[in-house]
Amino acid sequence: MSGKVGMAVEQRDEQRDEQLDEVRWLDARQQASWRAILRGTRLLEGALDGALRGNGVQLSEYEILSMLSEAPERRLRMSELAAMVVQSRSRLTHTAKRLEDRGMVMRESCLDDKRGVELSLTPTGVETIERLSRVHVQSVRDHLVDLLTPAQFAAIGDAMAIVRDHLDPEGRSGR
Amino acid sequence: MSGKVGMAVEQRDEQRDEQLDEVRWLDARQQASWRAILRGTRLLEGALDGALRGNGVQLSEYEILSMLSEAPERRLRMSELAAMVVQSRSRLTHTAKRLEDRGMVMRESCLDDKRGVELSLTPTGVETIERLSRVHVQSVRDHLVDLLTPAQFAAIGDAMAIVRDHLDPEGRSGR
Repeated sequence: MSGKVGMAVEQRDEQRDEQLDEVRWLDARQQASWRAILRGTRLLEGALDGALRGNGVQLSEYEILSMLSEAPERRLRMSELAAMVVQSRSRLTHTAKRLEDRGMVMRESCLDDKRGVELSLTPTGVETIERLSRVHVQSVRDHLVDLLTPAQFAAIGDAMAIVRDHLDPEGRSGR
Repeated sequence: MSGKVGMAVEQRDEQRDEQLDEVRWLDARQQASWRAILRGTRLLEGALDGALRGNGVQLSEYEILSMLSEAPERRLRMSELAAMVVQSRSRLTHTAKRLEDRGMVMRESCLDDKRGVELSLTPTGVETIERLSRVHVQSVRDHLVDLLTPAQFAAIGDAMAIVRDHLDPEGRSGR
């Protein structure tokens, strides 16, 4: 009886091994690298967000102000902006509303397409991004750039540019 | 009059240049690297999340199931688990509630501390993580590992481990 159970278990294990063989699992080294990337980037985003929140702005809000500040006439279509900061359109709408309530951006109809909506930076928004860019660059240095050698930092940038271009072949995200 | 205004502007510019000098801005190459890292990791998380959502589970939910599946007795304290997946305690509470409603995890008092709460994986949770780990590893390969050389991938892992250890010196995030 126990022999039969043993065989049944063995057969199940064989079937399972066949299934497993189709999957190209990460080896231990790759698994460790992947987890370091996943947790490291999340901790980093948390640290950058924390530094900005201490100054009253979230990271997702900062990115929008930053993209607008670099755009021609400091204005962008909502659809373009969502792609640039890699946020869903609905999340961007919420974030834009919060920034509008604080007088940092204005929502307006597109000049050339009445159905489209553009976001533009107000003078308060310009003042905010000029002030917070100093805070932000310091935390990017403290928690990323200055921890690594220049070659290490450039290597991550090059690798993540490959990932970005693979997932965003049309280059709609902010460069 | 216009001369005075001109001087005032000049003085303001000088003051501003002094302020700017204190800030160690990123150069163009560093700025490009940083944006590739920021957008690339966000696009990557979106792709991994999308692959799992096609199977009914979000990335944040998957990470919790994964950490539980590797823990002794497949159970962890909520506080430990929050640190492991780098989520706020309140966000983890919401995610755990969703997983509990679908029968994948159970919330229980800690065996050794009645005030603490532990999360444990149910048989449904075990089945889910075994099935979805195949989906997940394939998308991690498709959108990251297999796009890079082994040396490139290892280099990002090493660099992000430095960032992780700097922001989490006690090693509370999942390894």
